[in-house]
Amino acid sequence: METVNSETVAINQTDQAMHLPRRVTLVIEARWVIPVIPEGSLLEHHSIVCDGANILDILPIDIARQRYQPLQTVSLSEHVVIPGLINLHTHAAMSLMRGLADDLPLMPWLQQHIWPVEQKFVSERFVRDGSLLACAEMLSGGVTCFNDMYFFPQGTAEAATQAGMRANLGLVVMDFASAYANDADDYLQKGLDARDNWRNNPLLSSSLAPHAPYTISDQTFAKVITYAEQISVGIHTHLHETEDELRQSVEQFGLRPLQRLLNLGLLGPNFVAAHCVHLIPEEMSMLAEHGCHVAHCPTSNLKLASGIAPVARLLEENIGVGLGTDGAASNNRMDMFSEMRMAALLAKGISGNASAVPAHQALAMATINAARAMCLDNKVGSIEVGKLADLAAVRIADPETLPCFDPVSHLVYVAGREHVSHTWVNGELRYQKLNGQDGVYANIEPAELKDITTSWQSRLNPYK
Amino acid sequence: METVNSETVAINQTDQAMHLPRRVTLVIEARWVIPVIPEGSLLEHHSIVCDGANILDILPIDIARQRYQPLQTVSLSEHVVIPGLINLHTHAAMSLMRGLADDLPLMPWLQQHIWPVEQKFVSERFVRDGSLLACAEMLSGGVTCFNDMYFFPQGTAEAATQAGMRANLGLVVMDFASAYANDADDYLQKGLDARDNWRNNPLLSSSLAPHAPYTISDQTFAKVITYAEQISVGIHTHLHETEDELRQSVEQFGLRPLQRLLNLGLLGPNFVAAHCVHLIPEEMSMLAEHGCHVAHCPTSNLKLASGIAPVARLLEENIGVGLGTDGAASNNRMDMFSEMRMAALLAKGISGNASAVPAHQALAMATINAARAMCLDNKVGSIEVGKLADLAAVRIADPETLPCFDPVSHLVYVAGREHVSHTWVNGELRYQKLNGQDGVYANIEPAELKDITTSWQSRLNPYK
Repeated sequence: METVNSETVAINQTDQAMHLPRRVTLVIEARWVIPVIPEGSLLEHHSIVCDGANILDILPIDIARQRYQPLQTVSLSEHVVIPGLINLHTHAAMSLMRGLADDLPLMPWLQQHIWPVEQKFVSERFVRDGSLLACAEMLSGGVTCFNDMYFFPQGTAEAATQAGMRANLGLVVMDFASAYANDADDYLQKGLDARDNWRNNPLLSSSLAPHAPYTISDQTFAKVITYAEQISVGIHTHLHETEDELRQSVEQFGLRPLQRLLNLGLLGPNFVAAHCVHLIPEEMSMLAEHGCHVAHCPTSNLKLASGIAPVARLLEENIGVGLGTDGAASNNRMDMFSEMRMAALLAKGISGNASAVPAHQALAMATINAARAMCLDNKVGSIEVGKLADLAAVRIADPETLPCFDPVSHLVYVAGREHVSHTWVNGELRYQKLNGQDGVYANIEPAELKDITTSWQSRLNPYK
Repeated sequence: METVNSETVAINQTDQAMHLPRRVTLVIEARWVIPVIPEGSLLEHHSIVCDGANILDILPIDIARQRYQPLQTVSLSEHVVIPGLINLHTHAAMSLMRGLADDLPLMPWLQQHIWPVEQKFVSERFVRDGSLLACAEMLSGGVTCFNDMYFFPQGTAEAATQAGMRANLGLVVMDFASAYANDADDYLQKGLDARDNWRNNPLLSSSLAPHAPYTISDQTFAKVITYAEQISVGIHTHLHETEDELRQSVEQFGLRPLQRLLNLGLLGPNFVAAHCVHLIPEEMSMLAEHGCHVAHCPTSNLKLASGIAPVARLLEENIGVGLGTDGAASNNRMDMFSEMRMAALLAKGISGNASAVPAHQALAMATINAARAMCLDNKVGSIEVGKLADLAAVRIADPETLPCFDPVSHLVYVAGREHVSHTWVNGELRYQKLNGQDGVYANIEPAELKDITTSWQSRLNPYK
């Protein structure tokens, strides 16, 4: 975490001694604040006081005005401020393949559309451009951090850095050759080399990302464990996504994938399993016992007809469940508002319990639960003093959002990403959409991004 | 349907004789047009030529420029134009109760929150104000027509007339007293009296709306059938929404509700059953055999934990399925884009078939299928020459909507109601949101609407 520099401290100490308001960089005055921690709380007419990248104080607006003298004040009289949303499972660069092939079963979708395009087009440039498009989409939807897994992670690192977003970049590993690497060792080497380039970047962290049990041998999993321990990073994989995956694993290994990974020693509190659609009770217990995390991707699982994860059950077992959009080729939105809403609704419909995954819990899944899964919960995932100022503001003022009896419920069941007015990362404004104006990014030029995207579209179009 | 007046015809005939372009009121030049009929078609760079309320021609932009001389041309170079969306089941006035009580099971939700508020507050004024709020929300989301059912339908008629929306207003009937009426005869009388006020309004039509099998006796159903035949209107009811409803019906009548209604003679091509979550195969055959229509409300059914309707099966049986939002107290959005997407996704997830309810079909459910259910398909529901110009334009240009390989797929899986730029009803612009500006309504003042809504919120707040 960044520290206040010594000069500022000296000035502020003088100010305090003279009972002057303390100088800070930013005060956000909000109609409502949902801090996420403490669980279930809602603050009204509160200020979030930020100094540099950090949240310094959270207190009633009128008291904050006496105690602090900000360089900048942002008054949000019709807004709810939340922790920046965290997308716990995505392949950002795939946004260039958004809608390339829809309404198709998984295998034709992969084999006839996605894989041929990846083989032919995916490069560091493709990944950088696609990830920048994804960052633009996510920032405008209040997302401040994403947990990625894709080829050429250096391209995603560059895009996140330009956009000013936080990212946990998965160093992808497979036993199959791709446009990126030849074999498991090559993937690992390339991933570790890429990581050397961003190790000192405060916005970026890494995980090892063995693609899935059906693309990774036991030997390679063993290497992944060794490297993850050596460089102290977590492990992020696809798991129990489809029934085919389970059948295949039983045929090939005599075990369901989760049991196989348990035997190999992969399960632990630094393990993030994306999807987990198909789980028997014993497997839920395994996940719970080892403190594993699940990245629930409800929209992607429906769209590819994989099924519906038993989220209400997972939460009852105290398993940490975050939310992910998956890539834009199988969603086709990188919209965490949609995922929160979908997760809350599906859990009710499937469990037969209208109280399953209430709004507060859906928001926790999209923030603090995801932060915990990436071991970033000491920094982000809630609005707390001492954490980094990764924040989003949502405007509740248009006819479709009125009346508002409960802003937490509104955030999940009523608001959409289009109501996001501000997104801050590390206390810096990265996206802003003022009332009646187009959205503006700090470091992304939409017209330029559109040209880049259109150019890729022309090249990919024949593979539609 | 309105006809071109004789003076216009005379002028146009002269123009044509002299090979001059024909004068018309409006030409919409669109990058893409999805007419819905013919099924599966997509037009590129086409003009929709409107004269007064009617669609006069649909042809390539360059040819249209030679043949027609419009009073107004709207150029939509980055847009897809679709038939105005039709909300096949809603209670518009309930938008004033949006988010009043969430994450609750059906009975506490109804008994402790919704019913007490309805009993205390619902009046013609409440219904007019709530319906106007709903019209504002729907118009800005590309919805041009809705199939309503609520107390004080005269209030909804006034709101729809002010907003310039098309509505099929259900004359609600129950055997229980409410703030609106005392008994079945009173409901029927009040409904028929209200209808007399709007019978000559070209935007409004009516149905009889017996609330649900559990609130209506056999005798009352018989009266409903008689009146519906006498005044030649359809019948709109809630049906097979929850398992409780089925259990109760078997206990009370010895029959499941659908069988009971069949015996009573209600089923037919003018019968719209909202929900139909729980159906056995024989019941699907009954619906199919009698040409009944289903208003599928996927979000509401999930939110109240009612379950998931077997939509893929219904469509296989050639049952007409439209989409509805239900009221904003159980959704909490009147957003047909969300319903299209939810319907397409859920059908895949539940059936295990990623090709179930493809994008074209989801759009048909939100347009022509709903028009058929209300017997309005000779007027609206598709973009065809001779139909009324109820249209919506959706802008595909923001980062979250790029690239665009297939605009039909994008409409369902990518776009949201926030991308709607224009909504026309009867060839008249009712809503417009120009790039980088706030949305503007022809006949609704958002600031005034906000004041009205806020005032109701203060009164309802103690019942939260």
